[in-house]
Amino acid sequence: MLSEMDKEYSLDLLWDLLAQDSPAGDEAALSDWLTEWLSSEVPDAVVERLGDSLIVTRGGAPKVAVFAHLDTTGWTLGYDKVLIRIGGPAGKIGDAVRPVRRPDTGCTLAQRKDGNWKLAGKPDAAPGSRFVYAALPKVDGDQITAPYLDNRAGLWAALSALKACPEIALALSVQEETGALGAALTARRLSESYGITQALIADLTWDTKHIKRGLGAAVSLRDSSVPRQSYLAHILALAEGSGLPFQREIEAHGGSDGAGIDHSSVPMDWVFVGAPEKSPHTSRERVHVGDLQSMAALLVHLVNGL
Amino acid sequence: MLSEMDKEYSLDLLWDLLAQDSPAGDEAALSDWLTEWLSSEVPDAVVERLGDSLIVTRGGAPKVAVFAHLDTTGWTLGYDKVLIRIGGPAGKIGDAVRPVRRPDTGCTLAQRKDGNWKLAGKPDAAPGSRFVYAALPKVDGDQITAPYLDNRAGLWAALSALKACPEIALALSVQEETGALGAALTARRLSESYGITQALIADLTWDTKHIKRGLGAAVSLRDSSVPRQSYLAHILALAEGSGLPFQREIEAHGGSDGAGIDHSSVPMDWVFVGAPEKSPHTSRERVHVGDLQSMAALLVHLVNGL
Amino acid sequence: MLSEMDKEYSLDLLWDLLAQDSPAGDEAALSDWLTEWLSSEVPDAVVERLGDSLIVTRGGAPKVAVFAHLDTTGWTLGYDKVLIRIGGPAGKIGDAVRPVRRPDTGCTLAQRKDGNWKLAGKPDAAPGSRFVYAALPKVDGDQITAPYLDNRAGLWAALSALKACPEIALALSVQEETGALGAALTARRLSESYGITQALIADLTWDTKHIKRGLGAAVSLRDSSVPRQSYLAHILALAEGSGLPFQREIEAHGGSDGAGIDHSSVPMDWVFVGAPEKSPHTSRERVHVGDLQSMAALLVHLVNGL
Repeated sequence: MLSEMDKEYSLDLLWDLLAQDSPAGDEAALSDWLTEWLSSEVPDAVVERLGDSLIVTRGGAPKVAVFAHLDTTGWTLGYDKVLIRIGGPAGKIGDAVRPVRRPDTGCTLAQRKDGNWKLAGKPDAAPGSRFVYAALPKVDGDQITAPYLDNRAGLWAALSALKACPEIALALSVQEETGALGAALTARRLSESYGITQALIADLTWDTKHIKRGLGAAVSLRDSSVPRQSYLAHILALAEGSGLPFQREIEAHGGSDGAGIDHSSVPMDWVFVGAPEKSPHTSRERVHVGDLQSMAALLVHLVNGL
Repeated sequence: MLSEMDKEYSLDLLWDLLAQDSPAGDEAALSDWLTEWLSSEVPDAVVERLGDSLIVTRGGAPKVAVFAHLDTTGWTLGYDKVLIRIGGPAGKIGDAVRPVRRPDTGCTLAQRKDGNWKLAGKPDAAPGSRFVYAALPKVDGDQITAPYLDNRAGLWAALSALKACPEIALALSVQEETGALGAALTARRLSESYGITQALIADLTWDTKHIKRGLGAAVSLRDSSVPRQSYLAHILALAEGSGLPFQREIEAHGGSDGAGIDHSSVPMDWVFVGAPEKSPHTSRERVHVGDLQSMAALLVHLVNGL
Repeated sequence: MLSEMDKEYSLDLLWDLLAQDSPAGDEAALSDWLTEWLSSEVPDAVVERLGDSLIVTRGGAPKVAVFAHLDTTGWTLGYDKVLIRIGGPAGKIGDAVRPVRRPDTGCTLAQRKDGNWKLAGKPDAAPGSRFVYAALPKVDGDQITAPYLDNRAGLWAALSALKACPEIALALSVQEETGALGAALTARRLSESYGITQALIADLTWDTKHIKRGLGAAVSLRDSSVPRQSYLAHILALAEGSGLPFQREIEAHGGSDGAGIDHSSVPMDWVFVGAPEKSPHTSRERVHVGDLQSMAALLVHLVNGL
């Protein structure tokens, strides 16, 4: 099943997205790039910018919004070469890192005695600069390994759904890794200006004992938040009716833009749909291509059915 | 004093409410039931539904809203019979639990070596199902013992106040146990659509060394949140003028729908009013009937006086 | 440089502000006082009150709002003379404390075996009363030592900027110490009613190894929150162009009204500008007069330039 879908949604865009840097707070360049891409690739889409978050709508009256966050984890260079976390990067000693939008200068992650991260090598960047993993994407058969697949792959799936769905809204949100701030902002605007009450979260989840790569995207029944059960039941019924492969995920921990929607004080339901990845927030995040195809196809099916 | 009030507010409704299941996220059936009940029992009340939260208004221009949360704690059945908490249930090994809206099948709470809860017995329910305590309410003289008196008793008091007050609003909120999400949502709507700036929180509090069952409802001077002092002083003065029994509670911890109102970014004051209970969040929550009468009478007095 | 600025902004107002009490939740008297002061000192300013928060605007179309919180830390007197924290006061055993708006009665801070604070001496105040440090401000050369310079000094700087700027908005917010609640509220109103999308946070920060008193106000590149980088870059460029002394602060921890703005679900950028102080939240907070002058001058320069 997965292999049949392999060709349905082109992965070209994913490589372009992985070539951008956007640690939380620093999403402006990616927003600019996307605005350009949207105007050439989906010319009938209407784009509204809120800070560096984007709301994209297509069709006269979309009934559902797909949320995909634009930001990644990273570090701020502090004093004395200390690296201060942006969100929760899970780096390892020796990982190559570089300043945003700058070439790799051979710097790596090191650890101080007090447990904080520091930079090894000459930073050639002023304190306050943002750093990201320098590793490049690799493809190995059905597997993609790259830093920041979370959430470049989710963003790819959301944009793939935009191209495929005549009536759809996207919320491309900032600062998910630092508190789902863009989700709260865009949810509120989508509620007030478009009357949208239904959302899907396009983001990556964890490859675990119970959710495995290669078996399709996961639909999350819960994480640290609990989605509204009647909406969840509706999504699960639609997913089952689709004939597409998917996995039912049940987690005690973790969160997503769904938590931001919950805290936006607007009436909007959400369910999380995402491919599982190995080694989240590391420089070696790893996904199965078939799960990305499943994720895009499932989003399209759900958006058209809701 | 308490004994005189015993007959003022009928407890019949409380038994009906205790017969419903509504762990956080799964309040739809209770909302349906209440909508029906309201249309027959308080036909002049106007009901607006936001997700599964309800806003109920009576009279042309209510000046105060009573918040009562609809949800309870519970568990989601995970993989391998693990039970994942919904909110903070305080179960004990051996407590009888059952799937929502299903009969007791003899399942009980057990504990895994890693400290997580699991289900003992045959769940006869799919992973993702919600579980609740199976214990039934008991009456023993002036005492009621039942799971989920928090917040069935608060909901009962709010609905009793609705019947008694010509001008009143209610916010019957979802997901209090998981972050007071429904309170933020309903506060915002009450502010924007009704101009309401004053709230009372109808919920249960703790029987402690300083707050005892049988001495009347508690008015909370603070918990982990600090209500606006000028509003609190006004409420305390009204409560003193009522001649009704009540206790002044001062706590360092705990929270309520008041925290949700605080985070809704609308100008709305609130004070917590609630009967104390023994053994909160267990299958054996315990309240004094007189405190419930005091709570309902105090809410009515405050709503009419504000 | 700092010494030249010493006379630019009068400190008279600071002594008046330090003479007021306003632990979080209890800002009403200070709001009243400020409303009076504004009507006599800045008669063209328009004041809107939301609870005890104030929005002050000057000029027809202000483009930027300066946030300064009105509240301080403190304690609520509980049962058995226990003192329950309001926010995070950093008291020491023996510190003189008194009930709000009451003379010093010789009470001091003591500690219980369980680590909680208690009151030594006869409180002469009912449980539920709020307590604050009793120490009086002292001036010693260029240094001011006083409790609650956080955030009386920030409030002074914001009001100084109000007097100096023809087009400006202020958000004088409540409950910053208990969750930046007033910031969320006022940010939302400033966005909806005035279309304001730019903010500066006027508050005190920490004297550390890297940020020293006497070298000018700090502009924070980040704390536990990460401001939007494009706005931060704009602020830093304006600050550099001003010729005024300032320091670039990079912190991993701490928060301000900026976090409240982030959680208000409105599109509003913010950057923190504040004088460093020694011994934050103690009865001996200590600032350099030149840093206060730098802070006021920098705020004025930024407001006029944004």
